Amino acid sequence: MQPRDDAGRDDPDGARGGRGPARRDDPGLLVGDLDEDALIARFLPLLPTAPTTLTGPGDDAAVLAAPDRRVVATTDMLVEGRDFRRDWSSGMDVGWKAAAQNLADVAAMGACPTALLVALGLPRDVRVGWVLDLARGLAAACEGTGAAVVGGDLSSASEVVLSVTALGDLGGVAPVLRSGARPGDRVAVAGRIGFSAAGLALLEAGLTGAGLDPHAAALVEAHRRPRPALAAGPAAARAGASALMDVSDGLLRDAGRIARASGVVLDLHGTTGALALWQDDLLARCGSLSGFCGAEDARRWVLTGGEDHALLACFPPEAALPVGFDVIGEVRAGAEAGVLVDSSPVHDLGQGWDHFAR
Amino acid sequence: MQPRDDAGRDDPDGARGGRGPARRDDPGLLVGDLDEDALIARFLPLLPTAPTTLTGPGDDAAVLAAPDRRVVATTDMLVEGRDFRRDWSSGMDVGWKAAAQNLADVAAMGACPTALLVALGLPRDVRVGWVLDLARGLAAACEGTGAAVVGGDLSSASEVVLSVTALGDLGGVAPVLRSGARPGDRVAVAGRIGFSAAGLALLEAGLTGAGLDPHAAALVEAHRRPRPALAAGPAAARAGASALMDVSDGLLRDAGRIARASGVVLDLHGTTGALALWQDDLLARCGSLSGFCGAEDARRWVLTGGEDHALLACFPPEAALPVGFDVIGEVRAGAEAGVLVDSSPVHDLGQGWDHFAR
Repeated sequence: MQPRDDAGRDDPDGARGGRGPARRDDPGLLVGDLDEDALIARFLPLLPTAPTTLTGPGDDAAVLAAPDRRVVATTDMLVEGRDFRRDWSSGMDVGWKAAAQNLADVAAMGACPTALLVALGLPRDVRVGWVLDLARGLAAACEGTGAAVVGGDLSSASEVVLSVTALGDLGGVAPVLRSGARPGDRVAVAGRIGFSAAGLALLEAGLTGAGLDPHAAALVEAHRRPRPALAAGPAAARAGASALMDVSDGLLRDAGRIARASGVVLDLHGTTGALALWQDDLLARCGSLSGFCGAEDARRWVLTGGEDHALLACFPPEAALPVGFDVIGEVRAGAEAGVLVDSSPVHDLGQGWDHFAR
Repeated sequence: MQPRDDAGRDDPDGARGGRGPARRDDPGLLVGDLDEDALIARFLPLLPTAPTTLTGPGDDAAVLAAPDRRVVATTDMLVEGRDFRRDWSSGMDVGWKAAAQNLADVAAMGACPTALLVALGLPRDVRVGWVLDLARGLAAACEGTGAAVVGGDLSSASEVVLSVTALGDLGGVAPVLRSGARPGDRVAVAGRIGFSAAGLALLEAGLTGAGLDPHAAALVEAHRRPRPALAAGPAAARAGASALMDVSDGLLRDAGRIARASGVVLDLHGTTGALALWQDDLLARCGSLSGFCGAEDARRWVLTGGEDHALLACFPPEAALPVGFDVIGEVRAGAEAGVLVDSSPVHDLGQGWDHFAR
């Protein structure tokens, strides 16, 4: 486990000052110094709002508009020490990331996000400032997306646990599942892959801080605050995408999920197009960090790195690719569903993120 | 913290047998012995289904019907050691309780539940059998309610954390908030209050097991598997209830929330009607447990005991009370919003459950 020190990177509050009883405006005020209602009263005003919210936080449940008569719903849990570290990510980063990855799941069905619900488990020794920054991070990630935080729950826990549910509206389009890819489709991506993994590697190597080259620092930022191309989801649905998902566990692993759900082979272009460009970009960004990474690292990050939340889609031959999507491969028939890179199986890389893997 | 021993009360699986590598059908199989996909593959088939689910678990998000064009949404987090103990509650109990309390929040808006999303944080040393029992508990609590589990997330964590989001449909009625109570309304409850708290007290005193009087054992059952009167929520909405909520943190505390949100006084009948009957019932059930509880305990359980998830409503004079509701007081005007019992403030009891209270 990481230390309980929660000094945030860009946290406006300083470390806890005196040892006396904390006042309400003490920057070192801890969660355990407030009762539940007082903490909620500080947290609520920072949360994002939206006109689709008919009844917001504060009652037994929220009520929100679902004009399409269908609602898209997804949930993700982030656990301290597994999905984030308080010494590597500020409250703002963690709130941002939790919102972004759930919003990406809504977009990956072809829907527009409308609402988040946020359940938060907190140790008593977390600074109240860190928790309020988390609310600010949720708000920043929701800005311009149409999503509000409409409800939540606070609980005590021995590690920070953040469970976000996102809801969305399909606006009249059919949801785009993972199972519709057909031989002859193009495989395309909106967003970049491997940048979050490279940023995590920089954090793990301790290569962060003020002296870091801005090109490399952008990788750390990509890890802390992923920016999924949310508008690309509904655009893909309207364009007639046959399959769609967000890449959260690595390209090979997630492309494999489309392949198996659709009973096809996804053959990716490893040495041309976007995948090759991203590898070159990653190498260039790490160029100032002597010996930090080589071509094999860049290839591994692009093919297996998770948490960029790029949107991976398949488009039938007749569909016009929406703006923002780059072709990275083709869908083929095959005796065994799976993923190829340059028409060959990939054996030398791991399978991406697994929560329970040893 | 409680011990990591997770011997469930009514768990069909025994303790872990040999020390060798676990087989897939080993009753002592632990979460850490399986990868994430394998655990999900065992968990999913046990979850409840419903015809409102258009796209169920397995894609980036679920899609469900929202015929009313509005969706009710609520979330609650249960944390091991705070909200349940694995040595006091089986996986079945924990799944049941998590579902029931979220379903009650949907009912407390006047809506019918349609869906649950379940995020689950698990230590590697939890038995797979316990986790599968949790799925069975979710299914049992959803039976007959119309709710399905449509999505979820599995994560590793250092304690069991279960975060459930419930969605519901209003079926054309206006949501019933906490803020609509008016002087002259009757205060009524569907369900019983204090039984869960009495059951918890029995567990805390170690008064459980095969020798326990069945009347007392029913209290433990009320704590482990609350049975909110879900149908009473939509019935109250259709009958014109002015305010509605579920009692999760104790009658005084939750009635106080209606009082403050509505700017009124809720004056409860402490010595006649349902509250008095419940106190007598609790005393009678504990009668065989010499010295275990007195009239003051029963009064405290009824007035401050949480987690029964009874529905607390206010009804205007002209509304006919739906079947299942018992009048327990009146709404009055008052200079200060709050709760009275027999027209007097209550000073000798705590304020109910607070997650961060010392």
